[in-house]
Amino acid sequence: MAEKTTSVHYLNYLQLDKILEAQYPLSNKKGEKAHEEMLFIIIHQVYELWFKQILCEISSIMELFKKDKIDEENVGVIVRRMERVNKIMTTLVGQLDILETMTSLDFLDFRHHLSPASGFQSHQFRKLEVMLGLKIEKRHQFGGCPYHAQFEGQKKKEILALEENQSLFMLVEKWLERIPFLNMQGFDFTQKYEQAVNKMLTKEINGIKAANLREEDRSLRIRMIKENKKYFERVLSETQHNKAMEAGETALSYKATMSALLINLYRDESILHLPYQFLRSLIELDHKIATWRFRHMQMVEKMLGQKIGTGGSSGQGYLKQTIDKHKLFADLANIATLMISRSYLPELPKNIKTSLGFKFKN
Amino acid sequence: MAEKTTSVHYLNYLQLDKILEAQYPLSNKKGEKAHEEMLFIIIHQVYELWFKQILCEISSIMELFKKDKIDEENVGVIVRRMERVNKIMTTLVGQLDILETMTSLDFLDFRHHLSPASGFQSHQFRKLEVMLGLKIEKRHQFGGCPYHAQFEGQKKKEILALEENQSLFMLVEKWLERIPFLNMQGFDFTQKYEQAVNKMLTKEINGIKAANLREEDRSLRIRMIKENKKYFERVLSETQHNKAMEAGETALSYKATMSALLINLYRDESILHLPYQFLRSLIELDHKIATWRFRHMQMVEKMLGQKIGTGGSSGQGYLKQTIDKHKLFADLANIATLMISRSYLPELPKNIKTSLGFKFKN
Amino acid sequence: MAEKTTSVHYLNYLQLDKILEAQYPLSNKKGEKAHEEMLFIIIHQVYELWFKQILCEISSIMELFKKDKIDEENVGVIVRRMERVNKIMTTLVGQLDILETMTSLDFLDFRHHLSPASGFQSHQFRKLEVMLGLKIEKRHQFGGCPYHAQFEGQKKKEILALEENQSLFMLVEKWLERIPFLNMQGFDFTQKYEQAVNKMLTKEINGIKAANLREEDRSLRIRMIKENKKYFERVLSETQHNKAMEAGETALSYKATMSALLINLYRDESILHLPYQFLRSLIELDHKIATWRFRHMQMVEKMLGQKIGTGGSSGQGYLKQTIDKHKLFADLANIATLMISRSYLPELPKNIKTSLGFKFKN
Amino acid sequence: MAEKTTSVHYLNYLQLDKILEAQYPLSNKKGEKAHEEMLFIIIHQVYELWFKQILCEISSIMELFKKDKIDEENVGVIVRRMERVNKIMTTLVGQLDILETMTSLDFLDFRHHLSPASGFQSHQFRKLEVMLGLKIEKRHQFGGCPYHAQFEGQKKKEILALEENQSLFMLVEKWLERIPFLNMQGFDFTQKYEQAVNKMLTKEINGIKAANLREEDRSLRIRMIKENKKYFERVLSETQHNKAMEAGETALSYKATMSALLINLYRDESILHLPYQFLRSLIELDHKIATWRFRHMQMVEKMLGQKIGTGGSSGQGYLKQTIDKHKLFADLANIATLMISRSYLPELPKNIKTSLGFKFKN
Repeated sequence: MAEKTTSVHYLNYLQLDKILEAQYPLSNKKGEKAHEEMLFIIIHQVYELWFKQILCEISSIMELFKKDKIDEENVGVIVRRMERVNKIMTTLVGQLDILETMTSLDFLDFRHHLSPASGFQSHQFRKLEVMLGLKIEKRHQFGGCPYHAQFEGQKKKEILALEENQSLFMLVEKWLERIPFLNMQGFDFTQKYEQAVNKMLTKEINGIKAANLREEDRSLRIRMIKENKKYFERVLSETQHNKAMEAGETALSYKATMSALLINLYRDESILHLPYQFLRSLIELDHKIATWRFRHMQMVEKMLGQKIGTGGSSGQGYLKQTIDKHKLFADLANIATLMISRSYLPELPKNIKTSLGFKFKN
Repeated sequence: MAEKTTSVHYLNYLQLDKILEAQYPLSNKKGEKAHEEMLFIIIHQVYELWFKQILCEISSIMELFKKDKIDEENVGVIVRRMERVNKIMTTLVGQLDILETMTSLDFLDFRHHLSPASGFQSHQFRKLEVMLGLKIEKRHQFGGCPYHAQFEGQKKKEILALEENQSLFMLVEKWLERIPFLNMQGFDFTQKYEQAVNKMLTKEINGIKAANLREEDRSLRIRMIKENKKYFERVLSETQHNKAMEAGETALSYKATMSALLINLYRDESILHLPYQFLRSLIELDHKIATWRFRHMQMVEKMLGQKIGTGGSSGQGYLKQTIDKHKLFADLANIATLMISRSYLPELPKNIKTSLGFKFKN
Repeated sequence: MAEKTTSVHYLNYLQLDKILEAQYPLSNKKGEKAHEEMLFIIIHQVYELWFKQILCEISSIMELFKKDKIDEENVGVIVRRMERVNKIMTTLVGQLDILETMTSLDFLDFRHHLSPASGFQSHQFRKLEVMLGLKIEKRHQFGGCPYHAQFEGQKKKEILALEENQSLFMLVEKWLERIPFLNMQGFDFTQKYEQAVNKMLTKEINGIKAANLREEDRSLRIRMIKENKKYFERVLSETQHNKAMEAGETALSYKATMSALLINLYRDESILHLPYQFLRSLIELDHKIATWRFRHMQMVEKMLGQKIGTGGSSGQGYLKQTIDKHKLFADLANIATLMISRSYLPELPKNIKTSLGFKFKN
Repeated sequence: MAEKTTSVHYLNYLQLDKILEAQYPLSNKKGEKAHEEMLFIIIHQVYELWFKQILCEISSIMELFKKDKIDEENVGVIVRRMERVNKIMTTLVGQLDILETMTSLDFLDFRHHLSPASGFQSHQFRKLEVMLGLKIEKRHQFGGCPYHAQFEGQKKKEILALEENQSLFMLVEKWLERIPFLNMQGFDFTQKYEQAVNKMLTKEINGIKAANLREEDRSLRIRMIKENKKYFERVLSETQHNKAMEAGETALSYKATMSALLINLYRDESILHLPYQFLRSLIELDHKIATWRFRHMQMVEKMLGQKIGTGGSSGQGYLKQTIDKHKLFADLANIATLMISRSYLPELPKNIKTSLGFKFKN
């Protein structure tokens, strides 16, 4: 018997006595038991457990980026952890289907007990936003108070400290700036890229002029190309880029943007494969969080319509605003605007190409 | 041998010679074969096949609603078909994951061959929008032309005719208006409901006044309740409702709205079970189409960033606008705002309750 | 300040101090921290939370079935709760994707700390199996001990008591037996159905004889029909059915089987709509649990190959065996074998048809 | 006008006139229109379109493997295409939910028109199985005929030719055999690995002997370790491996197995990252095809119960048999049995480690 207790049991390992005894429906206490409140509690607890896991992965990724030297092996680890975070996000979106089996009428059976508690008070979700890089001045505001007014004591301190610390966004920016590819052995990427873009646009315009098109189609297409040209120019000019940063139109530094562009364009090179996967996974995360906010808003609409939230927010209105405003890696997604097709891609000098590959081939 | 050809073979039944010989990548023809173009073609063909199926189901539902008498059996059939449409929509959203394996660089290998073809030219998708009830004046516009300028001849005629016909929205509205529950055997639903709302709001306000709350919490909560009160009043007044309709704020008639509210409130009654499921499935469809637009927009962002679409649209910008603007059953979703908890629900007179149930019990 | 603590906060409502402080990776304690152990703990805790929710729904359904009178309203509630359970199961299957991001090498970093703990020790999952109706003698056995040897004290008592109690299977069987449709106002369902089957089979055989078929096709098709005929005969004979029950080939009583068949055949009648949905949801649940076992087995295969489980089981071998053996509602799925097409369906007498419908039509 | 027809239109590009005019429900022709037959046709056409895409990807992967030199860049391309195939498979599994909205009664309305057509006649699915590596002698047989008796003329020739050609399995095996890692600069992998395994097992046994365990726990654990030891020995001996191959217990050559093991163990090295992802994607594909068969079987069970298939097969019985028997990359999955934790992993000599990494670091 004594030995038995020292050996690991599923029940103890998972602390199930705590986990499974942590559901206290308020409607029970008040003598008007609402069957559906249990689901409401449990799904939120599940969300919080997953948030804990996401925070654990994101923290570990940030630690790796804080190292002086991030070798390929670490990028591999980072990519795998981002992949995991994204799979968790897929589950978080999907499981809204469960909560949507609770209808308006069911929810109203116990909703009045909850006020003023609210999902806005999820400390972990706020931490996640801050760690990823959401700045307080970029947040969609509601009511007169800052978001952290919801927290007190240690919890508040923690979130204020995180606001001061480096975010994942900042760490990624620095990493991109450090990557030694922009000026490799006499290959000036930005210059070569600019030439390629101009060649491409000239060819496109000539092609359209020569084609047998209706006038309106022709002018439409030329207009499209000219719009693109302007965009390219703005982004390639460091001065204009810095202005756009000051104006809050873009957040990623010029150098980091160029590195990200290079990685996207030459992602077929072995050494850039993992960095490319990583940049992609950040956009993925941004999109999945946005999808979660979007589906969350739909669920609230179904349950409450235009009713005001238990925390006093405009409910689905607030959620709708955050979908776009709380995106963090839009600058990485916008790299797609700058992509040119492989046929225009400046060829890498042979010596560089070799040094970007692996030694062993089979 | 002769007999064999007369018996059904999978190959012929499914017309696979047509289906599987209908992929002509333009990049092949132009001598610069792009591996990824096949996926681009096939996934769009799959989308169109599913659109055909959705149109088939929606048409059949509309036919049932056009009958003089829609008995319970038919509502059952309608609910099952709507459920199928919604499962198809789930697949349509999910399979965007496949297209997202095509990256910007891959797409640019053949994109220039496609212009000016564009997803805007999907005749079936336009038909679906019109059949559900999207009016041309409610559409998000881009360019100077109406959406149907994309079509010619028979295709254009068909879409213009659909614009004139009754939409699913209109048919549902009429069905709701005809449902004989609003004035049953002396039970005036609207009046009873209004009394219940007032009782609820008064009780809530008194509760807050009596509670030991901080002043700011108290005023916040009272403000919330007053906002709700206004909303209730506006909706319950037929005059105000009609004004809101004229102003384009709401589209569903007063009577239909009241019927939908009644169905939502008394959905536990046997006879209202299927009507409730049906109303719910319409909101579901609206939400799933919106989710598809949302995820579609994200995919375009990843592939093209801010590039202009092949059809000359602002690409993801257009898609973003349609998410909200092309919703059709928002008025049904907004019923949730009017819900009151079961404890305030006016009790049905016994004779009515019996007549809403089944005869057989066990 | 004082007031604040009395008002509900998200943190307290969800008992997040318990939930989020319940992760103790064993590898941390032993000084060889394995990053991946956190995921292992959290996902299992999430599973257990969802099991709690499923048990809560299944218990509430069983309570409703224990009532003397199960009216239509209750069947509606039951159907909605089953739907929720099935949505939860969908999430449980889907989230295996998260665990599959942990690879063999990652798992081996901490697996040695876990032995002899094992998923077999999940008390809640065992309870679920027993409550649904899994009998100890039907379980796939491994090792020399009964499954409940994993539990002690109160936990063991609870599971032994459940073994004695009525299961959902038994309650459903009784409900089906009580449904008053088999002999309605002189309409003897079984007899009418048998006549219809014979008519159908005769017509099919005549059709084949008349057709211009190759001999082998003809005989193949006739063989198929004769097989079906035998199956029909065996099921329709109460004597043979009882023998099959004694032999353990079938578990559902003759009368309950006939009722289930009737519900499936006449499911378009209003009054049978919800009972049909309920029967369908039981098959769905059985299938989803089986899918979960199947995907679980695949995950174990990827992580451990043929390695023996931490609890000493043959790991994936055990899981594979349970997929089929632990199914509970196979008899309901097999009703499909007995279905005949609507064109052969015995018509209900008009007086019965009316009494199966609703009074109100519109 | 003339110009307009020469420019690309969505309709023509996708050949929608062919695709959307290829649905001929047999029940329409015979004057007993069954609403549900359209879904049956369209979903099968969608499946065949996706099969075409999968074949396109698998063929292109096989072409890459047939090259003399498969450099890292190509492995990157292969990994991305396998990922796409797996996402398609996810959709193929998920969309069974749509077909499951068709119930037994619905299907029987038109099923009799289909015989003897059957899913067994899918030429593309057979091609896929053969291309992946399924040998005719490994197939689950039913009826007296080989599977290709379903095809005639060109279709039959094509499938017989594929049977003769190299399969993906064979190409992967050769690639693994060629990978130059097993004997690198004096590092004999197999020998080092064997030593590591023995060290690990000895330590485990000693640990158990020293521990304060109940006798039955001790012996259980020791038995587990001894079982593992035997498995390791059998696999590491080339002679025993060859015997197992002759006996049909394993299919992958000794050398390829050792390479696959090495890749799994040292997957953190940069150069092995992509090969690892590729091996993993093959197991994933095997599992997803198996899941598709499994869910397909469940769907058939719901629709037909134990009824015999339209093609004369035992329906779900056949499908159940193929789940395990038609797996192709089980040997790769079984590598997991041979994994040892990182703490026992033989350290790579420094010169090898360098040559496995990239030159550039940041």
